[in-house]
Amino acid sequence: MNIAPTNLAIDRERLWSTIMQTARIGATAKGGIRRLTLTDLDAAVRRWFIAACEEAGCTVRIDEMGNIFARRPGRDNSRLPIAVGSHLDTQPSGGKYDGVIGVLSGLELIRTLNNAAYETTSPIEIVNWTNEEGSRFAPAMLSSGVYAGKFTRDFAYGRQDRDGLAFGEELRRIGFVGSEPCGAAHHPLAAFFELHIEQGPILEAEKKVIGIVTGVQGMRWYEATVTGTDAHAGSTPMSLRADALLAAARMIEAVHRVATRHAPLAVGTVGLIEVRPNSRNVIPGECFFTIDFRHPEDRVLDEMEKELGTALPAIAAETSVTLAWQRIWNSPAVHFAPECIGAVREAAAARGYPAREIVSGAGHDSAYVAAVAPTAMIFVPCEKGISHNELEKAEPEHVAAGADVLLQAVLSMDSHLAEQGRA
Amino acid sequence: MNIAPTNLAIDRERLWSTIMQTARIGATAKGGIRRLTLTDLDAAVRRWFIAACEEAGCTVRIDEMGNIFARRPGRDNSRLPIAVGSHLDTQPSGGKYDGVIGVLSGLELIRTLNNAAYETTSPIEIVNWTNEEGSRFAPAMLSSGVYAGKFTRDFAYGRQDRDGLAFGEELRRIGFVGSEPCGAAHHPLAAFFELHIEQGPILEAEKKVIGIVTGVQGMRWYEATVTGTDAHAGSTPMSLRADALLAAARMIEAVHRVATRHAPLAVGTVGLIEVRPNSRNVIPGECFFTIDFRHPEDRVLDEMEKELGTALPAIAAETSVTLAWQRIWNSPAVHFAPECIGAVREAAAARGYPAREIVSGAGHDSAYVAAVAPTAMIFVPCEKGISHNELEKAEPEHVAAGADVLLQAVLSMDSHLAEQGRA
Repeated sequence: MNIAPTNLAIDRERLWSTIMQTARIGATAKGGIRRLTLTDLDAAVRRWFIAACEEAGCTVRIDEMGNIFARRPGRDNSRLPIAVGSHLDTQPSGGKYDGVIGVLSGLELIRTLNNAAYETTSPIEIVNWTNEEGSRFAPAMLSSGVYAGKFTRDFAYGRQDRDGLAFGEELRRIGFVGSEPCGAAHHPLAAFFELHIEQGPILEAEKKVIGIVTGVQGMRWYEATVTGTDAHAGSTPMSLRADALLAAARMIEAVHRVATRHAPLAVGTVGLIEVRPNSRNVIPGECFFTIDFRHPEDRVLDEMEKELGTALPAIAAETSVTLAWQRIWNSPAVHFAPECIGAVREAAAARGYPAREIVSGAGHDSAYVAAVAPTAMIFVPCEKGISHNELEKAEPEHVAAGADVLLQAVLSMDSHLAEQGRA
Repeated sequence: MNIAPTNLAIDRERLWSTIMQTARIGATAKGGIRRLTLTDLDAAVRRWFIAACEEAGCTVRIDEMGNIFARRPGRDNSRLPIAVGSHLDTQPSGGKYDGVIGVLSGLELIRTLNNAAYETTSPIEIVNWTNEEGSRFAPAMLSSGVYAGKFTRDFAYGRQDRDGLAFGEELRRIGFVGSEPCGAAHHPLAAFFELHIEQGPILEAEKKVIGIVTGVQGMRWYEATVTGTDAHAGSTPMSLRADALLAAARMIEAVHRVATRHAPLAVGTVGLIEVRPNSRNVIPGECFFTIDFRHPEDRVLDEMEKELGTALPAIAAETSVTLAWQRIWNSPAVHFAPECIGAVREAAAARGYPAREIVSGAGHDSAYVAAVAPTAMIFVPCEKGISHNELEKAEPEHVAAGADVLLQAVLSMDSHLAEQGRA
């Protein structure tokens, strides 16, 4: 019989020192990490990770996308592995926690099981997904996307960075083209858990330590161009103007109004705007701007889009400008597996951590993996929600709590699957 | 004795072809001109202008602000020159007539006097003022302002464009730092006349060919910087945002509201805006924008400024951003010299052009020059009042009429001054 999971606990000092140790690979002066995917620094952290996993008794397999799977055997190795993980690559000026804690807490989990000589029924795997950030090779989550069948391997191999170097060539150059085909069909998982920093301010604001991530919200991007008449700011009466920026200002207010109407779950952002001719004493004749709408439910995004479709043309009419707008991207909402969400919820409760359910606003490897394996995520707070920034900061006790919940969730999922096996 | 001025007439074909010739320097695809001050294109049109003036027998002097004075001697060169002119720089997407016709009609005037071997009593000068537009280096009319003692030379030299390049450095780079000190004390004028397009819809609407400009409305420029917090557009709830662009959008609406409250004479414009980081999925953390207020009465501008001073901080507070704003320029209402206005009125009447008195809505170099020399302006219609726009359009016969009135006004002023001299 299994030891009661709650008697097992991770070693928070060991976890933290491991995080700080890998943070030296690509460390920046401001305390962040610059470890772009498929660079020599990425290769260095990969080699370090493989060595650490093998030292922990794991068998390492690498697929043709460079995704790394480190396996600790279970009692019944005919069973599919329960996997945990995230990514070790970073933004150009990234922090020490984004992605990294999801992989290293997996390593800490294995070390904890080893120290306790704890034998799981199913094998356990740690996964390091290649190119989650997408800042060198777009799009983001490229290799978990290939794993989940969202992209083909050859599409991925053909992606080029700013210098025209192809993903495939760089993967070969750093020596990480594995022998195993990439995909859930070749390497199925019984479940996947990903620990990650929130990258938002909600947990901190509510003094929660654990975010029970129930899914990833749907995202829609739009582009709008407003055309008025650029004219002299001094000699054109207010009544005779067709001011593209005034129209855009009212449309920005409308985007805010639509998102706020569907708050707290909806968000709406105008992040980019370009005005022509953009001169102090000329009434703007043209204005281009983008709109980013997100919500956990696609049907709400449909409503928001419909409301925007009513508001924007009305503003264009009242300001005597013409409007051209279109949706340029639609990423449907992702809902994680109830059994995995439940395992995280129970683990947080069992360990007594203040927790709340949350929907991820950002994209993660789990969003793709969820399409081919039961998946859930665990969030921990990061200071002021700041991420993709060298100043990204997470508290040791929060990261430890996240790793602890990850451990408990994996063990309860293992017991759950064992029960099923027996039934 | 002088020939009766009315027997002299400018060559409208020559004037028009000269306008079209210079329009090639910085020509845009849409038929306008992009010839920002102190750029290589500005240098090119300056060199063309100097060559043309010297070919017409003028002596060219350049002051330390790059203002160009081309002089045709008179019978009595101990007298102060009667000057005409405007500016050859344009807006980022400017037209072919704004400023240009005021300088080139001066050249046509000199050529006409040369062909008729007409000798004036006072010397005649054509002036090209540096940086009238102010779209690259704020404020506008910078060099006529230094000439009139409104700004110091060093203040002007220190003005920076949005790339951080200083006016002084750029003036030196294009080789137009002249040897003559800038100022009416060093280079006094007996009178100044400026021919310009109306840049408004009034003359066209009333089928007038000549606007007898009696003054210029007051103008105030402001700069505002709104600082919020740039954060992830997907993971930051609407309630926890400090969106600098949303705040700016509401401030743009406030500028419109204040100006509209004081319409029809008041105008208010936000023509330039810059957002940081200006990325689709990042909530804007900083927003810089400009405000342009104008009205014929300074006391109304005081009220408008007071209303803005109440509205902007209130918006900053409600949107959780910080606001820094200041007035960077104040150009009081200007009233031109009765004797110069009279000369324009008589010239228009003598030539039988439909004319009306008008107050300029736009700023002009004449607004500053009027403080140190008797000054007036002549307006001609432009299609639909559209200006600061590549589609700006003026009729050849209207431009010719304006140049003709300019010639007559200068000659009657010359006779008038000669009479005074004799009295």
